Amino acid sequence: VAKEVVAGTGQRADALRNRDKILTAARAAFADTGSDISMAEIARQSGVGMATLYRNFPGRRELLEALYANEVQAVCAAAADQLGDPGQSLATWLRRFFVFVTNKQPIGAELLRHSDGPLPMMSESRTRVSDAARPLITAAQQAGQLRLDLSLDQILDLIVAVASIPRDIEYLSPLLEATLNGITPPQPN
Amino acid sequence: VAKEVVAGTGQRADALRNRDKILTAARAAFADTGSDISMAEIARQSGVGMATLYRNFPGRRELLEALYANEVQAVCAAAADQLGDPGQSLATWLRRFFVFVTNKQPIGAELLRHSDGPLPMMSESRTRVSDAARPLITAAQQAGQLRLDLSLDQILDLIVAVASIPRDIEYLSPLLEATLNGITPPQPN
Repeated sequence: VAKEVVAGTGQRADALRNRDKILTAARAAFADTGSDISMAEIARQSGVGMATLYRNFPGRRELLEALYANEVQAVCAAAADQLGDPGQSLATWLRRFFVFVTNKQPIGAELLRHSDGPLPMMSESRTRVSDAARPLITAAQQAGQLRLDLSLDQILDLIVAVASIPRDIEYLSPLLEATLNGITPPQPN
Repeated sequence: VAKEVVAGTGQRADALRNRDKILTAARAAFADTGSDISMAEIARQSGVGMATLYRNFPGRRELLEALYANEVQAVCAAAADQLGDPGQSLATWLRRFFVFVTNKQPIGAELLRHSDGPLPMMSESRTRVSDAARPLITAAQQAGQLRLDLSLDQILDLIVAVASIPRDIEYLSPLLEATLNGITPPQPN
């Protein structure tokens, strides 16, 4: 197999693939098992050796930071994917944002245990997510499909509040749908 | 002034009035000033002497417990007040429940600092509030004015989640209204 260099990264494709395999496995492991998962178990589930794991992520904190950054990047990218009806596009993305909040909470909590206080990347992530979501909010309001008395911050805070209710997804899912229904303009009677 | 005994309480009317004055002043003081308020300041704002204050409430914890119980009693009583349209009655009571959650949070937090763990009255209060709210929920669902996929617990948890967003009432008020709009059945398009 040729060891091609990926344009713009300076990293060989197989190294990037390993990094990606580790992050994918770690993401699933955190979602399933929570924060107790060991680095050895993450290596095993990724199908890479411990040396490869530690070459990519010298410690648990570096791995957690990369996972957190990946989640932020993915939810921001999803905001650009939207097409068609502005109200439906916003609702679809807010469901994705809800999953993001749920996924990042255990990673964020674990990251706080490995650091001396909130990390700059955490407050920066809110700014990045807000910037990504703003066009969706604006389009939905201009189309008359979103209440005009709600700001971007208020809408994100509302979804975070629902996602933070300490119950499982079966319990939260109808609450999320009711909330998405609620941010549409009230129907004239 | 005659010192009449109030039927069923064994307490004289002026003693009950003093107790009520203290609780009313303490409630306002906690809402305004938060948990820093002193017993001396509460006596001053109630217009009673320190001896009267301590005869009614031997310590801060007893006063906090009485305040907490009063809030629970008031929100439960408000559920019985409702008349007319079931959807409007439920919405009106849920706005009252939102205020209840906001008022009891600082009292509950302070109470926890004065005790060895959650008090039985706290979990009992959820049961009492649920029992009081159940007829409102049932009536609204039977009238087709409340989503059928939401339980009493889910609705209360949703309002608690909105009330727990750490922002002021101006910020939260449209979120509460959007939420109340959202728990009504979706309109056919």
